[in-house]
Amino acid sequence: MAKPTPLSGFPEWLPDGRIVEQHVLDTLRHTFELHGFAGIETRAVEPLDQLLRKGETSKEVYVLSRLQGEDGVEKADPAGREKQLGLHFDLTVPFARYVLENAGRLAFPLRRYQIQKVWRGERPQDGRFREFIQADIDVVGAGELPYHFEVEAPLVMAEALGALREIGLPPVRILVNNRRVAEGFYRGIGLGDVEGVLRQIDKLDKVGPDKVSELLVTECGATEDQAKACLALAGISGSDVGVIAEVRALAESYGAVTELLETGLGELEALIGAAARRAPGVVVADLKIARGLDYYTGSVYETVLVGHEQLGSVCSGGRYDTLASDGKNTYPGVGLSIGVSRLVSRLLSAELVRATRSVPSAVLVAVAAEEQRAVSDGVAAALRARGIPVEVAPSAAKFGKQIKYADRRGIPFVWFPGTVGEDGAVGADQVKDIRSGEQVDADAATWEPSAEDRWPRVVPAS
Amino acid sequence: MAKPTPLSGFPEWLPDGRIVEQHVLDTLRHTFELHGFAGIETRAVEPLDQLLRKGETSKEVYVLSRLQGEDGVEKADPAGREKQLGLHFDLTVPFARYVLENAGRLAFPLRRYQIQKVWRGERPQDGRFREFIQADIDVVGAGELPYHFEVEAPLVMAEALGALREIGLPPVRILVNNRRVAEGFYRGIGLGDVEGVLRQIDKLDKVGPDKVSELLVTECGATEDQAKACLALAGISGSDVGVIAEVRALAESYGAVTELLETGLGELEALIGAAARRAPGVVVADLKIARGLDYYTGSVYETVLVGHEQLGSVCSGGRYDTLASDGKNTYPGVGLSIGVSRLVSRLLSAELVRATRSVPSAVLVAVAAEEQRAVSDGVAAALRARGIPVEVAPSAAKFGKQIKYADRRGIPFVWFPGTVGEDGAVGADQVKDIRSGEQVDADAATWEPSAEDRWPRVVPAS
Repeated sequence: MAKPTPLSGFPEWLPDGRIVEQHVLDTLRHTFELHGFAGIETRAVEPLDQLLRKGETSKEVYVLSRLQGEDGVEKADPAGREKQLGLHFDLTVPFARYVLENAGRLAFPLRRYQIQKVWRGERPQDGRFREFIQADIDVVGAGELPYHFEVEAPLVMAEALGALREIGLPPVRILVNNRRVAEGFYRGIGLGDVEGVLRQIDKLDKVGPDKVSELLVTECGATEDQAKACLALAGISGSDVGVIAEVRALAESYGAVTELLETGLGELEALIGAAARRAPGVVVADLKIARGLDYYTGSVYETVLVGHEQLGSVCSGGRYDTLASDGKNTYPGVGLSIGVSRLVSRLLSAELVRATRSVPSAVLVAVAAEEQRAVSDGVAAALRARGIPVEVAPSAAKFGKQIKYADRRGIPFVWFPGTVGEDGAVGADQVKDIRSGEQVDADAATWEPSAEDRWPRVVPAS
Repeated sequence: MAKPTPLSGFPEWLPDGRIVEQHVLDTLRHTFELHGFAGIETRAVEPLDQLLRKGETSKEVYVLSRLQGEDGVEKADPAGREKQLGLHFDLTVPFARYVLENAGRLAFPLRRYQIQKVWRGERPQDGRFREFIQADIDVVGAGELPYHFEVEAPLVMAEALGALREIGLPPVRILVNNRRVAEGFYRGIGLGDVEGVLRQIDKLDKVGPDKVSELLVTECGATEDQAKACLALAGISGSDVGVIAEVRALAESYGAVTELLETGLGELEALIGAAARRAPGVVVADLKIARGLDYYTGSVYETVLVGHEQLGSVCSGGRYDTLASDGKNTYPGVGLSIGVSRLVSRLLSAELVRATRSVPSAVLVAVAAEEQRAVSDGVAAALRARGIPVEVAPSAAKFGKQIKYADRRGIPFVWFPGTVGEDGAVGADQVKDIRSGEQVDADAATWEPSAEDRWPRVVPAS
């Protein structure tokens, strides 16, 4: 077999990179669970018709077919004989299906997190993954879902991402907006094509205000003055409730204060106020945040890494009135999704973080001679019984070579079982810290590494 | 959307089932890491030609194609424009590729574990999964791999599965054999088609000895006497080294003692001896264990749950001289793979285990009135800061309803923030254990649940 080359868009890490990724996943999971979110995992596939319900994503789906026939010739099942399946491209579609399928056995409001791979069948472009891990939280109600969950969800994410600062993740800024504010304002100034306007506003960062203004006129039937008003609204941002007064003043100047606008402003104010108390400086109202997806109905969120804004949003979401619906119930929800692989890829490629070693082992137990391997195995078992990760040297090579084995993997300690001296007495075991060279007598029944050395840690690289 | 129905072969769990699965995965991971195995994760897809290198598996592969075109019509890429991709059906093929791809950046011998989903594109039959989680450990060397790893690998798995006994997993029995013993014996009695004989012996449990004897004669050209010898060998089993003498005596009675047989017996004896010391009663030599796959060259392993032998092997593997090979190096290895989904499915369907609750939260903080939600949020934050999982009640309903919310999810404690009395003084917070009904004054800065109550646990169901 020739040396294989990586598949573009399918990231994989070496063992030390995986330690970083695993640490990120563990940290997210721990924070989500501290906030009472229950983990679920859904199958990787969904019926194709469900994945394609939103036409815009149809290009991104990987479709599965089974290999059949004796000689390995590909044969798709004849249509209708079996439902066609595709890999999920996000965790929202499968979660909606899971909620409907299990509605009678779930307790609502349901707080769930879900950390899984998703796949997008696109041609890989720069920085685009075709397989990546997402970490989602959502709160879903049956029939209704109070507004306060729209305040809570981004704050949970702020805490989860904030917990990664100690390993070197830059601080995050969560940009929030409210669809009701946008819609209320647009309708107030006489623009009825709300989705169309949002779609143009969403392009602001890419094409700039002049072009967006032009598009609002040509695509959405806006007058120059209406376009100007939309851009003025999009220009408002701030992390305190003063931003609410600013929006209201703008709306008043256009005679555009509507009931919907006031509802939205009340919600946005509650979110900004609570965020200022609970996570000062993290949440910023940014009236240009539009989010492309048309199912958001209230708050919308995007998250940037401060100083790395050009990476785009690493965690996005919003409130939707209809996650799913069967004959009896409608399930509204609010949630956010972190693109974990993008985050980890950035942490590794920018060398912001590193693992303190590439293997779990804190100790390598040396082997003096193959016939004495059982002695070393015994030491290892005694250490493991007290929760210390250990491996035994692969061969009874010269001790210098065994120390090199540990050094290459970053294993901090090498353990030497006591040997039988010329007088027949068994010497004490010794353990060597190969970083300092210090070697001391030690007893496998009581010796402890420092808390810092017990497991590999993830630390800022600098 | 109509109520969706489950897809046969794609298991999913409710939140409390997922707690059980997550506990199993955490336990396996912890044991593997205690033994110094580093975790890796590979992409879900491999080039189809790599997946199909072994013809026998060709029916089981899911092939991916991308949806293209504006109208969502499926169009596979023209041949050659892009390599066809399939979902991996095990973790060995991707690991072999990973080793070759990264050989220059990995340290050998490499101890790795890998816990991931795999997919098999087969028609689902009773108990057959099309998507399931495997947990693999392997030790892989560059050029060589000492025999002692064949002793270590099954003992690590014995410890990992043994750690699950406390939640109600039945004890395991690891059945071991050695290809060299079988091959040495068969050649010693004059049978050259070793793989053919192994294939027939593998059918013993299914079709019985009479049929196997017949097949050995008709398919492998054996005489009646040779067939009888093969069955006699397959009939030997035992957990102490006496089994070695038994095999040797049988071989001697046929004049079939070969050098290869003696090598194999020496290895098997070392394995049985070490296992008897390190995990008494767990490992049993069973000379009929053949393992269908032809790439095993030394030890082979199967694992049954004692009392549930009809489930078949839940953890299998063996030694292979060539996991992978490039121009320069050959990578021999030894490893075992646990079918986690089958195990969890069995634990849940047989109601052997249960989670103590369906959500992470140990405490529900009640909300006296919506205007006082911030007070409850403050209590929750104080408890979480000390690592206690908490959620706040979804609405300021009557306390009875809030307690019911906790009860339905198994949340043991409900917290009542102190209220302002008629005299203006703030009363103490109180916490109620809703199982006993006991309610006491409590301070969010110091109160602790018992260690048993802090997180949901997985316990035997009986």
